[in-house]
Amino acid sequence: LSHLTLALDIMGGDNGPHITLPAAMKALQEFPQLNLTLCGDEPVIQTWLNANPNPYANRYTIVHCSQQVLMDESPIWALRNKKNSSMACATHLVEQQQADACVSAGNTGALLAIAYSVLKTLPGIGRPALISTLPTVSGKKVYLLDLGANVQCDSETLVQNAIMGSVVAEHVSGIAYPKVALLNVGEEQIKGNLQIKKAAKILATLPSINYIGFIEGDNIFNEVADVIVTDGFTGNIALKSCEGLVKLLIEEVKRDARQNLLTKIMAKLALPLLRKMYLRVNPDQYNGASLIGLRGIVVKSHGNASDEAFLYAIREAVQEVTRQVPSKIKDKIEAVLMERTE
Amino acid sequence: LSHLTLALDIMGGDNGPHITLPAAMKALQEFPQLNLTLCGDEPVIQTWLNANPNPYANRYTIVHCSQQVLMDESPIWALRNKKNSSMACATHLVEQQQADACVSAGNTGALLAIAYSVLKTLPGIGRPALISTLPTVSGKKVYLLDLGANVQCDSETLVQNAIMGSVVAEHVSGIAYPKVALLNVGEEQIKGNLQIKKAAKILATLPSINYIGFIEGDNIFNEVADVIVTDGFTGNIALKSCEGLVKLLIEEVKRDARQNLLTKIMAKLALPLLRKMYLRVNPDQYNGASLIGLRGIVVKSHGNASDEAFLYAIREAVQEVTRQVPSKIKDKIEAVLMERTE
Repeated sequence: LSHLTLALDIMGGDNGPHITLPAAMKALQEFPQLNLTLCGDEPVIQTWLNANPNPYANRYTIVHCSQQVLMDESPIWALRNKKNSSMACATHLVEQQQADACVSAGNTGALLAIAYSVLKTLPGIGRPALISTLPTVSGKKVYLLDLGANVQCDSETLVQNAIMGSVVAEHVSGIAYPKVALLNVGEEQIKGNLQIKKAAKILATLPSINYIGFIEGDNIFNEVADVIVTDGFTGNIALKSCEGLVKLLIEEVKRDARQNLLTKIMAKLALPLLRKMYLRVNPDQYNGASLIGLRGIVVKSHGNASDEAFLYAIREAVQEVTRQVPSKIKDKIEAVLMERTE
Repeated sequence: LSHLTLALDIMGGDNGPHITLPAAMKALQEFPQLNLTLCGDEPVIQTWLNANPNPYANRYTIVHCSQQVLMDESPIWALRNKKNSSMACATHLVEQQQADACVSAGNTGALLAIAYSVLKTLPGIGRPALISTLPTVSGKKVYLLDLGANVQCDSETLVQNAIMGSVVAEHVSGIAYPKVALLNVGEEQIKGNLQIKKAAKILATLPSINYIGFIEGDNIFNEVADVIVTDGFTGNIALKSCEGLVKLLIEEVKRDARQNLLTKIMAKLALPLLRKMYLRVNPDQYNGASLIGLRGIVVKSHGNASDEAFLYAIREAVQEVTRQVPSKIKDKIEAVLMERTE
């Protein structure tokens, strides 16, 4: 693309402009074709811009927003009462096609509610899903969805998630005919709840999806699949459990460190590895999580993101714009619908 | 108790008699009041006993079983066609009150199906649940259930799991008025699926249960709760995801080790810690998982258990017999029923 525009929610996240603005400047440096719309409190943004080196003044505009969504606000409340927030503004710019995508580090639930309400889902998609990548044993990555957008998933939603995940893996990561698996409590066909068994039967009939069957939790990181599909309830809990486990390991290493010189050296060496892993099992912290299935691109960065993490999320948005993810999802859903009616 | 009898499935698990019999002998040494019924292929058991030091001949009996349940057999098939298996035999001995509990390292699904069919559930309990403990940050433990016995949980099943978990934490681990939480995708009341919201409302009305609310996956290992309740689908996947993550960390450390002398030293030190953690997030491998809610005690050891792990499972069974877990669950269910009708 010769030219692309992203709308950034400058006020979102725990640290707001202090991390979003430095990330914005780095992104402008990295992508010469990029233009940014900075949504937020104009005086705050202007103060920061005046105080910092700012060679890209012709490639951004500021849209003043009188409100901001707080991190602990209820999604429904934010949707109804924060119509002038930086988050709502960034989303509306995508809807009005004044931006190609938006990026926010704000309240996840509110972003889901606002994006769903403003952008609406693509034809054939019932609900958006949250997708991101996790690390695997040989240093590659695996897509996991839904990470918590939709806690009550029927079989149709699981099938839609499988199709969307397959599109993202193919078009964003360049994996041809990506292997798609359903996360389950066993690999045999008889395993699992009713929704997942029904979804498996449907997926097995679709030539355009490379469905490989069920996989168990211990194989998430094993490169058995390129895309792992689950409901938002299980996906969120599985991921956060992994996060909790890494925190536990960090505590154990710290405690062991007090024993003797050897364990102290080990801690010095092991802690950076564990901290790196902690970031990697926090997908939105590592590289942003994307809200897919909408008529527009929305990338979520972690609430506690660093400017580096917010920059990752911007990069992800650039990728998705370049690869035209929503229109690819729309095409694939149409193709699958044809397969299912044949 | 002055006297207790356990029925052991000698043939179950990947290694059968080679680990179950050494564990049995160690258990007889450890618990002077213990008697064992060894269920399995008599010639195989006799050969092992003849070849090994065996000072407890007066405290075990052998019950010959002509069949054994294989690790990859379907639960329903095993239930129907393996009526003379060592697993079925051990379970029947509990049902006939010839044993106080049984222990098996065999096929989990088959053990669930056979135990459920032979022993039946306690009054007020719809389905059995699989419970075990996980490590926490200060070296304590937390109970997690259901680990996969029941993949389709309605709100009543979640409430029953909460009651059963509370009883086990109180009577087996001696935790007074244990804190019980529901595993969810957020801590706010509006979070989660319909089943969990309904279960939360019911639990909040029960004075005999110390229900503290929702917790997220990243707080499992944090000592926020003593008992964490979830459905068998989510519980199984959360646990196995943690297992997969530890395997990933082990691979990363091994790969890093090749870089230089320092990382090689680190690997030497970090790998034992990670391997220990791997065992600890494999609850049935570490200390046995219990099938609760039945009219009898059934403890499951890991299929690939060592004799030490099988001994842990025997110890767990001894504990549960001593603390009379099924009758305590029955009493608590009755008490809660009174509270709910008041």
